[in-house]
Amino acid sequence: MSFDHRKYRPFAPIRKTDRRWPDRLIEQAPLWCAVDLRDGNQALVKPMNVTQKQQLFDLLVDCGFKQIEIGFPAASQPDFDFCRKLIEEDRIPDDVTIQVLTQARPELIERTYEALDGAPRAIVHVYNSTSTVQREQVFEKDREGIKAIAVRGAEEVKRHAARFPDTDWTFQYSPESFTGTELDYAVEVIDAVNAVWEPQNGQKVIINLPATVEMATPNIFADQIEWVCDRVQHREHFLISLHTHNDRGCGVAAAELGVMAGADRIEGTLLGNGERTGNMDLVTMAMNLYSQGIDPELDLSDMARIIRTVEYCTEIEVHPRHPYAGELVFTAFSGSHQDAIRKCLNKRAEDDVWNVAYLPIDPSDLGRRYEEVVRINSQSGKGGVAHVLERDYDITLPRWLQIDFAKVVQRAAEASGDEINSQGIHRLFNSEYLAIPNGWRLHTYDLHRTDDGVEAQVNFGESDQQSLLQGYGQGAVEAVAQALEQRFSLTLKVDAYDEFALSEGTNANALACIKVMVNDAPVTAAALAEDTSTATLQALLTAVGRFQTASETAKQAAGVEAPAL
Amino acid sequence: MSFDHRKYRPFAPIRKTDRRWPDRLIEQAPLWCAVDLRDGNQALVKPMNVTQKQQLFDLLVDCGFKQIEIGFPAASQPDFDFCRKLIEEDRIPDDVTIQVLTQARPELIERTYEALDGAPRAIVHVYNSTSTVQREQVFEKDREGIKAIAVRGAEEVKRHAARFPDTDWTFQYSPESFTGTELDYAVEVIDAVNAVWEPQNGQKVIINLPATVEMATPNIFADQIEWVCDRVQHREHFLISLHTHNDRGCGVAAAELGVMAGADRIEGTLLGNGERTGNMDLVTMAMNLYSQGIDPELDLSDMARIIRTVEYCTEIEVHPRHPYAGELVFTAFSGSHQDAIRKCLNKRAEDDVWNVAYLPIDPSDLGRRYEEVVRINSQSGKGGVAHVLERDYDITLPRWLQIDFAKVVQRAAEASGDEINSQGIHRLFNSEYLAIPNGWRLHTYDLHRTDDGVEAQVNFGESDQQSLLQGYGQGAVEAVAQALEQRFSLTLKVDAYDEFALSEGTNANALACIKVMVNDAPVTAAALAEDTSTATLQALLTAVGRFQTASETAKQAAGVEAPAL
Repeated sequence: MSFDHRKYRPFAPIRKTDRRWPDRLIEQAPLWCAVDLRDGNQALVKPMNVTQKQQLFDLLVDCGFKQIEIGFPAASQPDFDFCRKLIEEDRIPDDVTIQVLTQARPELIERTYEALDGAPRAIVHVYNSTSTVQREQVFEKDREGIKAIAVRGAEEVKRHAARFPDTDWTFQYSPESFTGTELDYAVEVIDAVNAVWEPQNGQKVIINLPATVEMATPNIFADQIEWVCDRVQHREHFLISLHTHNDRGCGVAAAELGVMAGADRIEGTLLGNGERTGNMDLVTMAMNLYSQGIDPELDLSDMARIIRTVEYCTEIEVHPRHPYAGELVFTAFSGSHQDAIRKCLNKRAEDDVWNVAYLPIDPSDLGRRYEEVVRINSQSGKGGVAHVLERDYDITLPRWLQIDFAKVVQRAAEASGDEINSQGIHRLFNSEYLAIPNGWRLHTYDLHRTDDGVEAQVNFGESDQQSLLQGYGQGAVEAVAQALEQRFSLTLKVDAYDEFALSEGTNANALACIKVMVNDAPVTAAALAEDTSTATLQALLTAVGRFQTASETAKQAAGVEAPAL
Repeated sequence: MSFDHRKYRPFAPIRKTDRRWPDRLIEQAPLWCAVDLRDGNQALVKPMNVTQKQQLFDLLVDCGFKQIEIGFPAASQPDFDFCRKLIEEDRIPDDVTIQVLTQARPELIERTYEALDGAPRAIVHVYNSTSTVQREQVFEKDREGIKAIAVRGAEEVKRHAARFPDTDWTFQYSPESFTGTELDYAVEVIDAVNAVWEPQNGQKVIINLPATVEMATPNIFADQIEWVCDRVQHREHFLISLHTHNDRGCGVAAAELGVMAGADRIEGTLLGNGERTGNMDLVTMAMNLYSQGIDPELDLSDMARIIRTVEYCTEIEVHPRHPYAGELVFTAFSGSHQDAIRKCLNKRAEDDVWNVAYLPIDPSDLGRRYEEVVRINSQSGKGGVAHVLERDYDITLPRWLQIDFAKVVQRAAEASGDEINSQGIHRLFNSEYLAIPNGWRLHTYDLHRTDDGVEAQVNFGESDQQSLLQGYGQGAVEAVAQALEQRFSLTLKVDAYDEFALSEGTNANALACIKVMVNDAPVTAAALAEDTSTATLQALLTAVGRFQTASETAKQAAGVEAPAL
């Protein structure tokens, strides 16, 4: 039996009686460290070349990262060379500190300092594995043996740093596989490392607690962090950093809850690249803060560049549903969502706090456009369709026509099974409402208002075969409708009509929409014209013209088919 | 200033003094409901056609889902038709209940029951929006007005159900946009709906609490769920369901913490497709339970089919780092990770509890292979390289040769900048160690053991120009080495040699690896042969032959260059 949960054991949580983190809120951004350039952590089929590394480094600097891990120089010649290049070509801005990773092995630490020779500032990040499984199965050492590796590493880091007094050194230690390490032992190792480094005497120290593998729900990770923060010595003299992974799909949640539990600093990557399921995504976590009104202390506004650069460097495409960055995340297909978004956007004044249904943030903050919000397929309703016509063609539809037209669009979308773009919607609107049947074009009108009502004369038809209509009514529409009833022996009842002035710069200045019951059958039509009266009367003529054309077609069809009976 | 956090306000959490969920563990699977086929929720550029819907439905059934939402028949003709098809063609297994979505509007509810006519069992899922922003900006109604929509919807659901007494009905209500709804009001609306449905009198009811938009950290969502569960009436008579979205990248975390907070049921989609950033991913949450030894009550072992079907139906590719499903998630590139994985796998007995560093689950549970675990590029170390040779070529390297060869592979990978596949590694091993220099092939040997040591005669060279070596030593290797020293005026010191018997079925039966100091320069070589002595002596000849060939090449090069001085 291959799919059998019984070969796994649950993660054993700690019993906590003094839990405070669920009552905390994140009220300021943590210190960010981008580890995109870490050697093993990139875990790419094709590791980045120097051009790609430089582009990613420049992007991280421009986004505002102040700590950037640039690789594992002792383990990789390209990483060593890249580190030298940054230092020798003076490419590290004054407010940026580079960080390099090394295992806690003397020869690697020595080589690491060679790579950093001449750096103005640097974080030396040394680690060894501390988890039960690593101790027992990989290193075959007991607790003391593993702690000795950490202490020896810490000593070497300190010793070599003293050889380069011109560099401003920060020391960082990670008990790698922290999530699989007994908490009391993690504290014991951290304290032993700090006993060497002495943060209480002024040495800058970062203790980084990695969820090397995500092993439990994120609240348990937060419990672990709070437990360690409560027990390590000299807590106020060094920074606690987190480095979460996404094996259970909760890397961002774990980092957020971990900050609530007391962490100061977050390591992650842009859009979450990294080993296996990836690292914590810095973009998502920073934008989560941003969307709560908290300054993320990063500038992610050029999201297009972030996406382009990450895709170029990792050769992995950003998923269309990736939070804040994916192609589809500011798009609504569903009719009710489109309708709600449209209403909220229309009511919103420019300086208002953002409060739009279905849109956690304003897409324009990230260089995305409102236009992308609404796309139309068979799932879309009147709101989306109306939005597209308004946005792209400056055509505002009355509500009754939105409902009618949405059905037209839905039928067309269902028939094609595909998305209908803006032009497609406009074409449908034209053919369904605006197209003037042959012989029904309005040429001239004369409207005479008297005390009792309006007398109307209308000239319509093709230029070589025009017809004159004369009628009388309470208004022009009624007058022409009355004339049409007489001429064509119809009953006409105008159910609704609306006129809209259009913005300047379009050929037509007015749009009229009309719904008429012709012999009790509803006919809807619209017209564009230079003035509202022309538009309205043309819409009426178009509606009646359609009815007549349809009737004649039906009669002819019946006539043609008759002999076959 | 377009990137400005000040246009957002933080989500206001509730003050909670009786929080219990952080002390809870999930100890059994929730009731799952797959909503992949929901109309608006799919939010695909190109909605699924009938063939795709049927394939996805069949997959969900085969995975073991007992509740499947199949669409919004009142809003979409294709959804209506698909619902009819399932019922009329008797395609719903006896242990599966279909669910359909409808807004709380009388005409839609009526149409929904038309779609369900003849169904043996069904869940009618009715919803209306209850959040502050939807009430104020979209519906322009107060609390009472919005509650009246819900109650009217509940009444219509109950009234129409009574018309079809042969169907086993479950009623489901969602206060849509629950996360943006004041909690006391959410409880008021839920109680009002239940006052109509009366779950305490036997009507099956599900109350679904959607994070229509994810608006806060997942612990706050859990607080909301616990708050509601503590206050709704007749809690023990109906199910609480959650439907989370992924706007902040924490949809799975919110669902997990929500279950700890009291929810019974989870709605989501396979691999997380859905509106904007997608729904909660059922695969991730179920596999999270599975990896903790909890029966997920789903069979996800045919992950290849799940991925293939979802990609076919959504036309969106699964991300290579998607938890449990992505192409790269069971792959380790980093040397230390590969080494650790190899050690853990080698130590593992078949029935052991799974406990492998860097691999949260056994890839074979999902139809993935161990082979995929290790891929080699310039980030890889000795462990990975050794693993590939062992796995694919049955070549076991001694540790000292692993270290030497890993450097060879790393140089080659750095030079190419790309991944090196298994054949590439084998080619490198052949050219670096196995290839016999011209004139150095062993033909025959005679070994005579005396009381004092071994006397060796070795015939080597090309067939037309063979040489005879004679030597004496403690063993065969020392004897031949001594002969080589004399013949070529060298000093030779054998640093290490190892012999391995190879498994049957290969042409060669033995592999020998040797490291010799030739005139104090280290030379490493290996040889495959039918017996271990041949392999060992050939390896020695190959090593010395390489040194000689290199020396001659150097001398010739010097000779050619000399005239230029």
